[in-house]
Amino acid sequence: MIKVGIIGGTGYTGVELLRILATHPHVELEVITSRAEAGTAVSAMFPSLRRFVNLDFVAPDDAGLEKCDVIFSATPNGVAMTYARRLLQAGVRMIDIAADFRLKDPEQWAKWYGMEHQCPDLLQQAVYGLPEVNRGEIKKARLVANPGCYPTSITLALLPLLEASLVDGTDLIADAKSGVSGAGRAAKVGNLFAEVAESFKAYAVSGHRHGPEIEQTLSTLAGEAVAVTFVPHLVPMIRGIHSTVYALPRQQIEDIQGLYEKRYADEPFVDVMPAGSHPETRSVRVSNTCRIAVHHPESRGRIVVLAVIDNLVKGAAGQAIQNMNLMFNLDEDSGLATPATLP
Amino acid sequence: MIKVGIIGGTGYTGVELLRILATHPHVELEVITSRAEAGTAVSAMFPSLRRFVNLDFVAPDDAGLEKCDVIFSATPNGVAMTYARRLLQAGVRMIDIAADFRLKDPEQWAKWYGMEHQCPDLLQQAVYGLPEVNRGEIKKARLVANPGCYPTSITLALLPLLEASLVDGTDLIADAKSGVSGAGRAAKVGNLFAEVAESFKAYAVSGHRHGPEIEQTLSTLAGEAVAVTFVPHLVPMIRGIHSTVYALPRQQIEDIQGLYEKRYADEPFVDVMPAGSHPETRSVRVSNTCRIAVHHPESRGRIVVLAVIDNLVKGAAGQAIQNMNLMFNLDEDSGLATPATLP
Amino acid sequence: MIKVGIIGGTGYTGVELLRILATHPHVELEVITSRAEAGTAVSAMFPSLRRFVNLDFVAPDDAGLEKCDVIFSATPNGVAMTYARRLLQAGVRMIDIAADFRLKDPEQWAKWYGMEHQCPDLLQQAVYGLPEVNRGEIKKARLVANPGCYPTSITLALLPLLEASLVDGTDLIADAKSGVSGAGRAAKVGNLFAEVAESFKAYAVSGHRHGPEIEQTLSTLAGEAVAVTFVPHLVPMIRGIHSTVYALPRQQIEDIQGLYEKRYADEPFVDVMPAGSHPETRSVRVSNTCRIAVHHPESRGRIVVLAVIDNLVKGAAGQAIQNMNLMFNLDEDSGLATPATLP
Amino acid sequence: MIKVGIIGGTGYTGVELLRILATHPHVELEVITSRAEAGTAVSAMFPSLRRFVNLDFVAPDDAGLEKCDVIFSATPNGVAMTYARRLLQAGVRMIDIAADFRLKDPEQWAKWYGMEHQCPDLLQQAVYGLPEVNRGEIKKARLVANPGCYPTSITLALLPLLEASLVDGTDLIADAKSGVSGAGRAAKVGNLFAEVAESFKAYAVSGHRHGPEIEQTLSTLAGEAVAVTFVPHLVPMIRGIHSTVYALPRQQIEDIQGLYEKRYADEPFVDVMPAGSHPETRSVRVSNTCRIAVHHPESRGRIVVLAVIDNLVKGAAGQAIQNMNLMFNLDEDSGLATPATLP
Repeated sequence: MIKVGIIGGTGYTGVELLRILATHPHVELEVITSRAEAGTAVSAMFPSLRRFVNLDFVAPDDAGLEKCDVIFSATPNGVAMTYARRLLQAGVRMIDIAADFRLKDPEQWAKWYGMEHQCPDLLQQAVYGLPEVNRGEIKKARLVANPGCYPTSITLALLPLLEASLVDGTDLIADAKSGVSGAGRAAKVGNLFAEVAESFKAYAVSGHRHGPEIEQTLSTLAGEAVAVTFVPHLVPMIRGIHSTVYALPRQQIEDIQGLYEKRYADEPFVDVMPAGSHPETRSVRVSNTCRIAVHHPESRGRIVVLAVIDNLVKGAAGQAIQNMNLMFNLDEDSGLATPATLP
Repeated sequence: MIKVGIIGGTGYTGVELLRILATHPHVELEVITSRAEAGTAVSAMFPSLRRFVNLDFVAPDDAGLEKCDVIFSATPNGVAMTYARRLLQAGVRMIDIAADFRLKDPEQWAKWYGMEHQCPDLLQQAVYGLPEVNRGEIKKARLVANPGCYPTSITLALLPLLEASLVDGTDLIADAKSGVSGAGRAAKVGNLFAEVAESFKAYAVSGHRHGPEIEQTLSTLAGEAVAVTFVPHLVPMIRGIHSTVYALPRQQIEDIQGLYEKRYADEPFVDVMPAGSHPETRSVRVSNTCRIAVHHPESRGRIVVLAVIDNLVKGAAGQAIQNMNLMFNLDEDSGLATPATLP
Repeated sequence: MIKVGIIGGTGYTGVELLRILATHPHVELEVITSRAEAGTAVSAMFPSLRRFVNLDFVAPDDAGLEKCDVIFSATPNGVAMTYARRLLQAGVRMIDIAADFRLKDPEQWAKWYGMEHQCPDLLQQAVYGLPEVNRGEIKKARLVANPGCYPTSITLALLPLLEASLVDGTDLIADAKSGVSGAGRAAKVGNLFAEVAESFKAYAVSGHRHGPEIEQTLSTLAGEAVAVTFVPHLVPMIRGIHSTVYALPRQQIEDIQGLYEKRYADEPFVDVMPAGSHPETRSVRVSNTCRIAVHHPESRGRIVVLAVIDNLVKGAAGQAIQNMNLMFNLDEDSGLATPATLP
Repeated sequence: MIKVGIIGGTGYTGVELLRILATHPHVELEVITSRAEAGTAVSAMFPSLRRFVNLDFVAPDDAGLEKCDVIFSATPNGVAMTYARRLLQAGVRMIDIAADFRLKDPEQWAKWYGMEHQCPDLLQQAVYGLPEVNRGEIKKARLVANPGCYPTSITLALLPLLEASLVDGTDLIADAKSGVSGAGRAAKVGNLFAEVAESFKAYAVSGHRHGPEIEQTLSTLAGEAVAVTFVPHLVPMIRGIHSTVYALPRQQIEDIQGLYEKRYADEPFVDVMPAGSHPETRSVRVSNTCRIAVHHPESRGRIVVLAVIDNLVKGAAGQAIQNMNLMFNLDEDSGLATPATLP
């Protein structure tokens, strides 16, 4: 059994990690930290976990994290980097579900996250944990940067086109829509039920932290610098991301459906829908699957790709566990082989 | 492996059965019928099941249901009784998730369901599938009447008090609230999103089919005729039932919390919450658990019991599978041992 | 034109007051205070009011509240009582939408609101602002205590029965359900969208501040002490309260429908629905109406009364304006004569 | 008083028309037709209108529509054209809120609406009822084609840029999101609460009827053929449309904010938000306003325009009444001068 620890388990990513790990056949949950909730039973905060998780939250300092085989960090940005060096030196592998190790350029990181990076050398060592792109490296990684939720869906939507150099990379448009759990469990007026229910809005049009992350990955895939106009929106639902991506073909593309099906044929968690489909976010709710449909409306220039994920699973906790499975040579879908819940 | 068939799998109970059975370790899904959808792939109708269920719907007549070990009937009321005798004679066990075999009195049944019962003799043979009451009989049953969603939550809420004759059975009040999936997947104006979202209402105050079912079970438990004022309400959410039950004690009750904890100590799917709790329906969402909290507000006469279930799981498909597990001597929680999904 | 001021206008009651007053034909909005938002334009915080409200929030000390004819206090509990004496002495009338003047007994008040009352003498002078009960007194009042949202719906539901001494007042049950806006606009984890959407729960079963307020009014109406088992619940919707009230008749009641219709025949904001109705909260959304249906299910003892209001209108801002209209001899429905918005 | 009739008043546009007209100061509601509901009281179907609308639905043949000054048609597509000639000949003005008179080309109309047009000559005579474009013609019109909900928001979003020839018209992208009431009140499985709540999806990517309508108007504004990639999405909320529009400037644009503010300075129902804003659909809920924000993210090519409307008001019934006000020389905002309802 793999000994697992979690840093910062009181948010939505934390409880989702706990939910999946609780029935993972190869994992023993050792420790979960929370400075604010030290001493509280996990199941007192999250009654959904009664009879499944018997741990109490402990203060980070008393946690004995070094005894674990792997640590998931599910904290706000800027915390994982204060633990990383110590844990890696102790031989513990680390998967950061926040953004501390996603960008390669420390100056970019400082600009977007508003603080200096504490271990810029580790930025280079960290592997970007998108298995559909980096499976081989993830298997050998000691430090994995779990991708953001928007970047996961947008990258998977564009990957086949960019790898094959079929579209113009200088004018990509990603219109993305997320459920409210993506905003986290912090007490903010803007995320109150009475503020966001029965309403819809865009946000951060002038620039969102996931923008440089998306462009970094897509540029690597394309082999040249790409530019993405990325506009995130808030949907009055708890879970789910729907990315609608618009790309201009450089040339006539013969079998775009076949291109996607072929590229993802062996991927356990990417499902290319039949031509003409409109995937719903609920078709992936509480599952680690990304479903994709690709459209090329007659007589129009733009290819339209629709990609849906559950932001807390493939967009956070589930993908982190997929990465753990790879790092420890387990079946890639171990603990994750369950259908979505619908309705 | 147990060979399972499903009659009428295009509703919410059907897709929930499929979801749970798809990963049940001791089950092989053989056949699923739908007259209207014969020939359609299950996963075309429910993309959430892609890669998990590879069956097509078949017309009932071609289904070969007799080759199964057990049939779940997830049809509208009045259909299961047209299959029951034939299947039982063929040695197939049957679990009806609709209401055909819930009431013992055929006249009552005809009154509430608006048609004559076609096999009143089987009403006597059928076992009411509430394991917390009838576990022993369920294990031996060939025909199980799976309880209604409201009756499940209300019976579990009152059971310890009635078994111990501690409350007045002539003036019980059950104020119950259900998510909209309880109304089924039929196309009705009243269940449109724009009709039920951002609204709340009671319905069927003059009488609901679950009323006689509740009174039948509670009267048996109490050993005398009980009367329940039962008012169901519709909540703008998909899943979940919350029953708030009011009972007047016949006498001073010393340790009502202990009474509940003791009664349910060995029950795998009933969780008595700590004193003072207010269980949320989300704490049981997509799980087979019923969580109960019992209150006796100071200086007031009424005991208040709060009970929550997922209407599609413990209130329908999950309880049906719990019954199947009992009938086939499997672990009672086989396929059902997963935590609720929160948020 | 009546000069109106608002103390504490940044919550949901505040914005609802502003919305209604903005088109009220006899009102001039003079000033609105907020210590935290002083200097902010009202329409910057609430873009829905752009072009309708041109005021900025001002600090209370600079507000010149004494120049107004009437002040609405839409602050948290405990604030209005610090302004009341000064304003009343300056000849300004006051309508407190919070709870400072609702209870007559200062000890009860201190117990439930956790602080000493600062002007217990004014508790006696204050008129409880439920026009259907106290219309005459409200017209003459200088200080009005606007009722709570739950008490408004529950009192209107029971009033005809209690006035006529037709039911047992010692075992009343009020099972009430409220939308989330009733919890206010404060940043609390418990009111986040991802916490309350797709879920339902009871709260404060052991005792809620509106309990003594309900019993105070009902006891006066009944002419004897009544006891109400009051259980509030949280509904995943923004606006609306649905109270389901259970009362045991003392005797055969011949024409309960006629009793309600007669009692409320002249009330502009109480609508007795036809016999057999189930009022939906959306039928009163964004309106000042309370709709009531009364049921007496055959062969059962309990009368069941269903009452719906919009908690922010008849349960708060609308009723406050109805009270203002009465205090200033305007048409009682001035500014309030608009239908509910459906869907 | 203007005598008003409504054809087909049982849908969401119908009830919204009734809600606004009920308090319109210059209107008398004469008649409302429904073949299926003839004889039913309007307020029995829509209790929100009790005390405000006292009409019964009547069969179209008995309706005496010719006695009205103006008829609103709120039927499914294809019905208004069967009434138009007769009503116009009788001197009645007509506002069709469905699509019968929106497209100028009868072949296009037949292609997208699946039937032959019955009075192609009237297509030329009909005025497209977008006051911000056609105010002068609407004032003189006898037959107005009320615009679609998506076209209203997308046209208002792009109008200033296209009129000034500032953007490339051959690669416009309109990613639009609508609440569920836009799908109407028909009983369809796809619009059930349990199907669309907690989910998000695109639809009709291969082509939507509003596409040619959008391109027709935008081409006229631009003075050249434009091409729009239009992708509609379904949001789990009742009301509201949010259109996110992406346009590529042909040249450096100096003061894009000023361009929008100037263009809409005199428009009573278009509100240009301050630079950097993100309008929420709730900021226009139940109001006739369109709020627009224009962004040009630094160092990126695309201009991003955000436009929100209430699909049932500015996107249907409200705009129809705005058109009626213009046609009858009333104040343009008569009956419509109310703030949005928030929360």
